[in-house]
Amino acid sequence: MNTKLRKKYCGAVDVGGTKISSALFTSDGQISHREKITIDKSKPENSVRQVIEIIKGLEGSARSENGTILSVGIVIPGIVFQQRKTVWAPNIPGWEHFPLQKMIQEETRLPLVFDSDRSAYVLGEQWCGIARDMKDVVFLAVGTGIGAGIIVDGRLCRGSEDIAGAVGWFALDPQFKREYSLMGCFEAEASGNSVARKAIQHLKSGESSILNKVRGNIEQITAQDVFEAAQKKDPLSEKIIRATIEYLGMGIANIVSILNPQIVVLGGGLFQSARRLLNPVRKEVEKWAQPLSAQKVRIELTHLGEDAGLYGAGKLAWESG
Amino acid sequence: MNTKLRKKYCGAVDVGGTKISSALFTSDGQISHREKITIDKSKPENSVRQVIEIIKGLEGSARSENGTILSVGIVIPGIVFQQRKTVWAPNIPGWEHFPLQKMIQEETRLPLVFDSDRSAYVLGEQWCGIARDMKDVVFLAVGTGIGAGIIVDGRLCRGSEDIAGAVGWFALDPQFKREYSLMGCFEAEASGNSVARKAIQHLKSGESSILNKVRGNIEQITAQDVFEAAQKKDPLSEKIIRATIEYLGMGIANIVSILNPQIVVLGGGLFQSARRLLNPVRKEVEKWAQPLSAQKVRIELTHLGEDAGLYGAGKLAWESG
Repeated sequence: MNTKLRKKYCGAVDVGGTKISSALFTSDGQISHREKITIDKSKPENSVRQVIEIIKGLEGSARSENGTILSVGIVIPGIVFQQRKTVWAPNIPGWEHFPLQKMIQEETRLPLVFDSDRSAYVLGEQWCGIARDMKDVVFLAVGTGIGAGIIVDGRLCRGSEDIAGAVGWFALDPQFKREYSLMGCFEAEASGNSVARKAIQHLKSGESSILNKVRGNIEQITAQDVFEAAQKKDPLSEKIIRATIEYLGMGIANIVSILNPQIVVLGGGLFQSARRLLNPVRKEVEKWAQPLSAQKVRIELTHLGEDAGLYGAGKLAWESG
Repeated sequence: MNTKLRKKYCGAVDVGGTKISSALFTSDGQISHREKITIDKSKPENSVRQVIEIIKGLEGSARSENGTILSVGIVIPGIVFQQRKTVWAPNIPGWEHFPLQKMIQEETRLPLVFDSDRSAYVLGEQWCGIARDMKDVVFLAVGTGIGAGIIVDGRLCRGSEDIAGAVGWFALDPQFKREYSLMGCFEAEASGNSVARKAIQHLKSGESSILNKVRGNIEQITAQDVFEAAQKKDPLSEKIIRATIEYLGMGIANIVSILNPQIVVLGGGLFQSARRLLNPVRKEVEKWAQPLSAQKVRIELTHLGEDAGLYGAGKLAWESG
């Protein structure tokens, strides 16, 4: 068969904190051969080997339909240092100052492109999600931590050291607390982990709440538990959620005022368990942001959900060609 | 004389809140034929006429040395709406939804390019100031108000509605005050005007301070007065300056965390009268910003001072060619 007639694909590999997702994408964002496996965290080499095998598997899948892969986008849950060609992913043991790029490239002739999860989220939503065809887009991921992927005038904003979008460090309250120096003020006040942590702290200090009964051990309380208790009018949970909404509004307002984006897409674990935060958060943004920017910006939940990173990996690969 | 041998210039016109500066620039940033006049604010047409005459004067100056002007950059103290081709400059009567671009272009065949003062400041510093040859640069102007000019990966960040950089609206304190809805929280807490306003409010409420004696009318107290009193250990003034430093640090930290720039250049009236704020502000940034970005970023005072806008206008013109 003439190679010119062969179907053209790009590969996408989204390495998350616990799972690796992969797929083939056509140039118009059609997805096929999706797979998801659990990361082997026993040794750094094992997780790298998994990624290499996935890429070989994608090549096999493409070949099986007389197709060919042009390049592969690989997304990691952390920072990709593009100059130094290392990665930093705190949730994968050994992936610190880790030469992932070299280790994988040695095993395949395919062109590879690496980027951070937050860059991938915003690219994915712009390619096939709710921010389709927009030029000024921010994706705010609120889950375990808080980070943003940023597209300015059609191009990814990576920053001078590849760590742009670290909005979890937004200073939002002059009353400095100890946690702020570990994770940043915005993240300490509004991430999913922080919602749970605040509830646990209050319960330990003896506050009464229906949360005392939802788990055998109060240390196991989740943000989801707090949202559910707030819906049942539990005063402690309502107080925590009110504060979370306020800080989310302030943080998003700051993004809106500095970047004047067309859309801020909200994703990550927190919004999956609390879609009804959307309207109160929008109101809070309006209270704080530059008024014209606040009036024009759309604030929406992710359309791709957990697939945003995978789509972003596909787009990265297609863009690199 | 062969036109190919004629000296090539670009014109620069920096319309400020009270003065209009102008000059010719060579492609390597050499400046000549500088002038500065006071804006005639009696009628919108009069100020426009001034700009037109300045452009004609620049053409004459170029001709007088057998030179030619390729284009002219015009900077205004407000927002330039590039799509709608209007400007908004609150300090010049009548310049609201004002078709400045069309009015001036009708009077000259020279290619014109318009932009906001904050875009010009950052371009100027990148061209001929302290941010020379850097790709990720922010200029923070703190004077009457607060605004930022932003260069991301070598390109001006204007935002989807040309109002990116409105960092005066940064939310930095969950305790919402009435002023925040008029000018934004950061501007209400840290601009030069706000330093003066806070002092006046405290004095009116009866607080004792040496500030009571520096002016005939306490309403006339300036930020400069407050800085000088703080140096003399006036407790009220020291308190106000401490808070200003804290909010400046938080605001700059937010810029550093979201954009990961190489440099943040500080300019505007406040820093002219208080250069010694620089080190305390740097410390405060370190306390709040993403640690790696905070460690890498340079925080410096403007090298071009009041000329940053003029240089930016020159660069805009040279870039447009």
